[in-house]
Amino acid sequence: MEPSFQRDTAYIPDRITVDARDGWPVEAGRYRLAVARACPWANRAVIVRRLLGLEDAISMAIAGPVHDQRSWTFDLDPGAVDPVLGIPRLKDAYEARFPRYPKGITVPAMVDLETGGVVTNDFKQMTIDFSLEWTAHHRDGAPDLYPEHLRDEIDDVARGNYEAVNNGVYRCGFAGTQPAYEEAYDQLFERLDWLGERLSHQRYLVGDTITEADVRLWPTLVRFDAVYHGHFKANRSKLSEMPVLWAYARDLFQTPGFGDTIDFDQIKSHYYEVHRDVNPTGIVPKGPDLSGWMTLHHREQLGGRPFGDGTPPPPPPEHERVAPASNPAGGIIRSA
Amino acid sequence: MEPSFQRDTAYIPDRITVDARDGWPVEAGRYRLAVARACPWANRAVIVRRLLGLEDAISMAIAGPVHDQRSWTFDLDPGAVDPVLGIPRLKDAYEARFPRYPKGITVPAMVDLETGGVVTNDFKQMTIDFSLEWTAHHRDGAPDLYPEHLRDEIDDVARGNYEAVNNGVYRCGFAGTQPAYEEAYDQLFERLDWLGERLSHQRYLVGDTITEADVRLWPTLVRFDAVYHGHFKANRSKLSEMPVLWAYARDLFQTPGFGDTIDFDQIKSHYYEVHRDVNPTGIVPKGPDLSGWMTLHHREQLGGRPFGDGTPPPPPPEHERVAPASNPAGGIIRSA
Repeated sequence: MEPSFQRDTAYIPDRITVDARDGWPVEAGRYRLAVARACPWANRAVIVRRLLGLEDAISMAIAGPVHDQRSWTFDLDPGAVDPVLGIPRLKDAYEARFPRYPKGITVPAMVDLETGGVVTNDFKQMTIDFSLEWTAHHRDGAPDLYPEHLRDEIDDVARGNYEAVNNGVYRCGFAGTQPAYEEAYDQLFERLDWLGERLSHQRYLVGDTITEADVRLWPTLVRFDAVYHGHFKANRSKLSEMPVLWAYARDLFQTPGFGDTIDFDQIKSHYYEVHRDVNPTGIVPKGPDLSGWMTLHHREQLGGRPFGDGTPPPPPPEHERVAPASNPAGGIIRSA
Repeated sequence: MEPSFQRDTAYIPDRITVDARDGWPVEAGRYRLAVARACPWANRAVIVRRLLGLEDAISMAIAGPVHDQRSWTFDLDPGAVDPVLGIPRLKDAYEARFPRYPKGITVPAMVDLETGGVVTNDFKQMTIDFSLEWTAHHRDGAPDLYPEHLRDEIDDVARGNYEAVNNGVYRCGFAGTQPAYEEAYDQLFERLDWLGERLSHQRYLVGDTITEADVRLWPTLVRFDAVYHGHFKANRSKLSEMPVLWAYARDLFQTPGFGDTIDFDQIKSHYYEVHRDVNPTGIVPKGPDLSGWMTLHHREQLGGRPFGDGTPPPPPPEHERVAPASNPAGGIIRSA
């Protein structure tokens, strides 16, 4: 391992836009979003697609939690082939665009159904474009996750969270030296303390509604006790021992579009079975007890309007529901 | 790894007794107790020696937390040699008794200062003999840790705890297969739930005073959140999330003779640095936050008389105190 973990952030920069500036127009039914339930970066895209009601416009390919050496695979599908893309491995879609693609085969990825090639895997831009470019296909009542007057603040908060939290847990878990680990650990918990303080008097991270800032932070929080606390040694305390952040994370878990995207079995299976350099036996912990996720959080006492002038999304389409045994809400969360 | 972890329990069975039936008489100044602060089995002997005030009669050699392939070593001592035994490795004392000793070099071990050889490493018998054979050297006010009328119950409770808890955490952590791990995990938490129920209406495990049953259980509980929860995947919940057991463990931590034997840095260092088959990087987690150990536990409301007709021990001798930075009580616990 390298002394400090460095994430390769040179993604395929193409964008799918209304004006098709990169050659990729917004068009319902043309693209397929490839994800894995396990992956926190893909989780952002899955949540935003749910909140905005883009399920009919952008279909979804779900890779299994345990990828092989080189690629996420569609081993959950009948015949281990994605039924729409017709390929067993996401790598095939990357290579349809770039033969002998040399970099990481990552999710989320938007795949063009005309060519079978990956258009983009730039997860930071992807959810912004779902919000700003795909408006014609948003459901009635879709929230504004990236309101113009709050963008600077959202970007600023999200940037700090990315360094210290979203990527910070990986910097804890993949540190090759004790000092690199301890530096990442200190930054992580300093930021979590800062977030706990901020969220003690406001329901959401920026403004009084759910925004892109919440969507970006939450996938790390929801995985915290299940994987990062033990597997990545992010263990000053569990999320469930940080009262404000734990209530905030539960509030969002119980909000349609968040908790119904989570498959804890796939999350644990991915981290513990794939990272053999951290967990050589590949044994997957049976804990933690997940029953706390559906307990009362009382965050509504802070005010806030989860969807602003919009409404919560309906339950996910039948074929996209998480297996009830892997999700403390049984895979379906309805608006309170 | 083996599918299921099997502990080799064939220890050197000699006993040190008043009648010297095995050739080893009780005699102050003749034996040295070799321990490591990290080891839960040695911790029992350290606690009983403290509670009974045997420090003057039986001196103590303290091995460092990170042993080599074959032996615990005295690398914490000046020149990396135990100042009394005059040896760098505990193995030397085993081989002084049995040349080419083929089995594990374990702590606790009682070493005879006349021959330099190990008399016994049978940790289960050792603390009983401290209580029943070394009575002439007990301090004034030493408690009766193994009262005659409670022995059957103590043995019975301790046997169940050994299988499911003391050794159970090792069976979780060293399981070579998913089913072996899950079986150990289920037994562990079933027993912890049983203990939590039992201890919800009585302050100590057997009778109304501290006994050998408490001494045997507690070294596993005190290590639970620091190592077993993460490193051994015993992660349904932390000890700090099991209210009754957490209060019981804090009560004993804050009792002189228990918490003052604990060096959390050495505990974490041992497990995370030695078990490279579980933790290949050898990186030692910075957590958990230990400040909770000294918080109020309110267990005195259950009644009970910690030392029965006896009294708490005074603080440890100066040269046996734990470094304050490694112990939430600063290494000294005084009777409330």
